[in-house]
Amino acid sequence: MPRVFNFSPGPATLPEAVLRQAADEMMDWHGSGMSVMEMSHRGKEFIAIHAEAEATLRELMGIPSGYKVLFMQGGAIGENAIVPMNLIGTNGKADYVVTGDWSKKSAKEAKTYGTVNIAANGEPSKFTAIPKQSEWKLDPAASYVHICSNETIGGVEFHWTPDTGSVPLVADMSSNILSRPIDVGKYGLIYAGAQKNMGPSGVTVVIVRDDLLGHALPVTPSAFNYQTQAEADSMYNTPPTYSIYIAGLVYKHVKANGGLAAMEEHNQAKARVLYDYLDASSFYSNPVAKEDRSLMNVPFKLKDDSLDEAFLKGAQAKGMIQLKGHRSVGGMRASIYNAMSMEGVKALVAYMQEFEKQHA
Amino acid sequence: MPRVFNFSPGPATLPEAVLRQAADEMMDWHGSGMSVMEMSHRGKEFIAIHAEAEATLRELMGIPSGYKVLFMQGGAIGENAIVPMNLIGTNGKADYVVTGDWSKKSAKEAKTYGTVNIAANGEPSKFTAIPKQSEWKLDPAASYVHICSNETIGGVEFHWTPDTGSVPLVADMSSNILSRPIDVGKYGLIYAGAQKNMGPSGVTVVIVRDDLLGHALPVTPSAFNYQTQAEADSMYNTPPTYSIYIAGLVYKHVKANGGLAAMEEHNQAKARVLYDYLDASSFYSNPVAKEDRSLMNVPFKLKDDSLDEAFLKGAQAKGMIQLKGHRSVGGMRASIYNAMSMEGVKALVAYMQEFEKQHA
Repeated sequence: MPRVFNFSPGPATLPEAVLRQAADEMMDWHGSGMSVMEMSHRGKEFIAIHAEAEATLRELMGIPSGYKVLFMQGGAIGENAIVPMNLIGTNGKADYVVTGDWSKKSAKEAKTYGTVNIAANGEPSKFTAIPKQSEWKLDPAASYVHICSNETIGGVEFHWTPDTGSVPLVADMSSNILSRPIDVGKYGLIYAGAQKNMGPSGVTVVIVRDDLLGHALPVTPSAFNYQTQAEADSMYNTPPTYSIYIAGLVYKHVKANGGLAAMEEHNQAKARVLYDYLDASSFYSNPVAKEDRSLMNVPFKLKDDSLDEAFLKGAQAKGMIQLKGHRSVGGMRASIYNAMSMEGVKALVAYMQEFEKQHA
Repeated sequence: MPRVFNFSPGPATLPEAVLRQAADEMMDWHGSGMSVMEMSHRGKEFIAIHAEAEATLRELMGIPSGYKVLFMQGGAIGENAIVPMNLIGTNGKADYVVTGDWSKKSAKEAKTYGTVNIAANGEPSKFTAIPKQSEWKLDPAASYVHICSNETIGGVEFHWTPDTGSVPLVADMSSNILSRPIDVGKYGLIYAGAQKNMGPSGVTVVIVRDDLLGHALPVTPSAFNYQTQAEADSMYNTPPTYSIYIAGLVYKHVKANGGLAAMEEHNQAKARVLYDYLDASSFYSNPVAKEDRSLMNVPFKLKDDSLDEAFLKGAQAKGMIQLKGHRSVGGMRASIYNAMSMEGVKALVAYMQEFEKQHA
């Protein structure tokens, strides 16, 4: 079957060239006589794969030398506990900015490990807008301030970087990392599950400023202690080797395609096609404040939700899948990460137009 | 390059047929138009892959219905904390049987979460024998008794199942799961990182008896709470989807090749070839008590360790890799898991004979 247009929020579509290379190298990586999956993580082959993945990520994101890059396990939901376990110990309290279901979940889990202050909460707007920083009630003595830079369910995204002064800014970037250039130096810690813009699920990237290491609570499992992993170059336990290899291929692919500036242009262009159509239509709607709209996840509703099933069925018949919205929001959602092509977005809009014509 | 004979302790060699199928299906799984890596874990395709992996594992191991099978992240070192976090809460104390570096590490980490009683310790024998159960000092009020069923570094293996009465037996089976039939009903909990006998690193299988769920300490991260994961069918967080897919292919491969009884026969035959030669030789030696020798990891030393480098170099030249022993033991180690062929073991012994002839 030809490749579908996969609008899944994650795990998500990957660059075809990366998959092809992985298939080609499956039986024998670079003349080693082994699959990457079979390599000892202590062997020279995998050490080279790991080092190249990290170096390419550092180059793409411009990660300064005072930051460690860790490849860990447990995903962003794991990090909901791992972050406070490692960081909240300095002052015992942290600020959380709640902009959607994901940051809400992060804040809830953190309460197990210290005092959580909800510095701002977008829930009154039903998470359709990101509270302005002027409304945030930050605690200058907090161990850190946590944000989720892109909410996959509500479809809001930070298009600006909060200023938290000397309090470290921590961001869950699972769903928009590598989608545009950012200034890593403005963050204390960035974490991201790989399964949207970086590769397969099962590997979590953690970018952490050196001074934030070494404050873990005693209950922190060794495998999830940032300092322990930093000292062991992410090999305190056996890392998810194959997932790191694929992430490394994705990094190289992004670099070969112009890096993060090119990704930003590509993502803006795709999102514009979709939002412009939604705004011009009275059949479809997106509830998010224009300045906070996500370039990665575009939720939208049909005028009449009794047409939802027919819409999804028609899309599937045209090879467009995973468009159903999250159950907490309903309607539709198109996730259009880096690896989604403009062709895919245009095909979706063409189908939406056709469907509108038939049912308006 | 032709496939090497890969004696790595893990990640380790995988069945060639599994790798070939993975390569063939990389671009398009069963006409879905997607790679398995790209599938939403909530989509019908991955749900089917996940269900089949679990069903095949249940069939292979004869897992009774009163047990949950979880696919988690963090590996066995992660479980060193996750097990006590989930289980020690019932009585606040646990028995650990220390038979090598891995169980020693498990016992050390558990101390963070409760009182640890070292019920038996093989360290006085330099971990060359498993203490007889008659010597164990078990606490009848312990929350559980922990063993490591096979120690990859020292090369000792339990060839019998401890009787712990009504106290649940917990086993780290990372390095010998699926190598022979076992009676799951004798265990309260079994865990295993996949990267020896089951697939790529990055997925941990946990088999847990239903009555052991629901006792997690409050500090347990949600993503690592067995009950939370059991209720969500291992999808409380995004599971390591591709690793589960490969593990499922390995399960089917083991089943197609006769199941665990056939694996046991195959593993005994391979180990016999190697141990028989070691015992007959005065040039090589293995220090482990015969009744406790591992069928999976065979450490051995050359009479003169100044020959180690030459031995490894010669092996590499013949396509036999990862034979260097663990740094804490020195010498050599041949890991001969399910996927290592008799041909590979015979090639190793032939090389050892040749090397002995040249250097004796």
